[in-house]
Amino acid sequence: MSDTVLAVDLGGTNIRMAAVSDKGAILHLTRAATPADVSPEGLTALTGRLADECRQSIPSNRRLGAICFAAPAPAAKDGNGVLTKLPNIPTLDGMDLRAALTDLLQMRVLIENDATAAGIGENWRGASVGVANSIMVTLGTGIGGGIIIDSEPLRGVDGTGGEIGHICVEPDGHPCGCGSHGCVEQYASATAIVRQARDEGLDVLSALAVYQAYTQGDARAKIVFRKMGRYLGLMLAGLVNAINPEMIVIGGGAAGAWDAFIDAVRNEINYRAFSAPAARAQLVQAKLGDNAGILGAARTAFLTITLTGTRVIQ
Amino acid sequence: MSDTVLAVDLGGTNIRMAAVSDKGAILHLTRAATPADVSPEGLTALTGRLADECRQSIPSNRRLGAICFAAPAPAAKDGNGVLTKLPNIPTLDGMDLRAALTDLLQMRVLIENDATAAGIGENWRGASVGVANSIMVTLGTGIGGGIIIDSEPLRGVDGTGGEIGHICVEPDGHPCGCGSHGCVEQYASATAIVRQARDEGLDVLSALAVYQAYTQGDARAKIVFRKMGRYLGLMLAGLVNAINPEMIVIGGGAAGAWDAFIDAVRNEINYRAFSAPAARAQLVQAKLGDNAGILGAARTAFLTITLTGTRVIQ
Repeated sequence: MSDTVLAVDLGGTNIRMAAVSDKGAILHLTRAATPADVSPEGLTALTGRLADECRQSIPSNRRLGAICFAAPAPAAKDGNGVLTKLPNIPTLDGMDLRAALTDLLQMRVLIENDATAAGIGENWRGASVGVANSIMVTLGTGIGGGIIIDSEPLRGVDGTGGEIGHICVEPDGHPCGCGSHGCVEQYASATAIVRQARDEGLDVLSALAVYQAYTQGDARAKIVFRKMGRYLGLMLAGLVNAINPEMIVIGGGAAGAWDAFIDAVRNEINYRAFSAPAARAQLVQAKLGDNAGILGAARTAFLTITLTGTRVIQ
Repeated sequence: MSDTVLAVDLGGTNIRMAAVSDKGAILHLTRAATPADVSPEGLTALTGRLADECRQSIPSNRRLGAICFAAPAPAAKDGNGVLTKLPNIPTLDGMDLRAALTDLLQMRVLIENDATAAGIGENWRGASVGVANSIMVTLGTGIGGGIIIDSEPLRGVDGTGGEIGHICVEPDGHPCGCGSHGCVEQYASATAIVRQARDEGLDVLSALAVYQAYTQGDARAKIVFRKMGRYLGLMLAGLVNAINPEMIVIGGGAAGAWDAFIDAVRNEINYRAFSAPAARAQLVQAKLGDNAGILGAARTAFLTITLTGTRVIQ
């Protein structure tokens, strides 16, 4: 039996890798900048180097059973280990991670969608421990989502399950990079907060700066967060009825502005959803920060090797 | 082992009961008008009478194992057999069906949400046989929904799972009986089709009349169905991304106007959802008509008694 896995947070800026124990302890964490225009060969070499570092840094009696990448890409339930549709790292589109790494690392290679991984991580060791039905919302550059039903991640046939950032909240609203208009991502992501603050006349470059203006009593910042919370709540109200979760976990950088927007989210859910599921759905802040995806990827790796067995080295 | 169950379609106008075989054959079907202001005692007596008729009409070697009601009410996974929140039959709100009927009928008493039951029915014997991930949409007076993921109905903790009719498609849109504004039910139900047709100046009283105008080339009816399809597609596009189903089954009376609205639904999904899940989601018309709910309730009854065992009479 393997008691340790490698978990990778594959982002457009950084690649972070951790050795994670079966209890969810991060035994070693390392990172490297994602090279500009990283090639598949470049990622393979970098992954090998980080994996070596992790292996050398953990006690020699621990056995590595698998590596799982939390990636900004769809990841189907029975995924084939190929990265697809990575808008932030297009040079890796089509890379067969499994083929490239299985023999090199001598372990199983898995991919989990990063937002789904964050939901799994919070469910394993964070805000939603013990909760069988939850929705994770990640408010960052975009909006990511992870849906867990009866303790199982909803991955979907093509791996887009949980993608809630492109639910439409304004039919003819702001254009979105996805090709649609009025996606909630255009109203409630960190990027959208900045754009809407600038529309209000605030001279800001980050969601944090908008939040700082809010804490100093700026009326325009208040308007921005109320609007942002309203649209987030409108989107969530539909899911509250249709999924009927016990908990909604909100994370990502913009979740730090919690007190500025959460009342508007709650009010909108109460206004739009049925009373029983609205009362049921607790709104809580994520607990694991940047490590949610890493821990979720680790959890997926453990569940997979427990279900299917594995080759184990070291 | 029981090889027959009773399935009831409990509606505000009619109560229909069928004896259904474990192969999904309707062995006997009977109905009665739902009495105005029906009391719990009245429903108990009526159910007993219809059940007696069903029992006497089926071969004596068949054994009845359970009765399941498809009701316009929430039905949680481990429901307690109490009817709640029935806007169309308010006199039954709070009725403990299980307490009232278990001893009288000498069988297990179950409740399934009617829209979820329709989804289960279509999945068992209708349009989505063999499809593990599907969404059923019922376009009637309101809009009902049933979501099936990995062959399991999504019922939700409070039984509102699958309630997709109140997903918002216009933030400040038409007022809805649920208390919100701009629910898709206000744009794509049979009721909404009539209202929108009258807004266009058509002198109609039913969705069927609007469809007849459409088939005769009426430009206003064309506009109505295009708008209706657009809003339905907008709502479904969000679910196509987030649930990533293989199939969307559309039923209910207004689904009869299929050719008038389905192109607009498809176009809107393609415009708003990601390409892979949009291409995955087949749009198909329901096959079972009025019997979808009855067959779904029967299926739930069979699965429950198979899982948990049952007392069997006759």
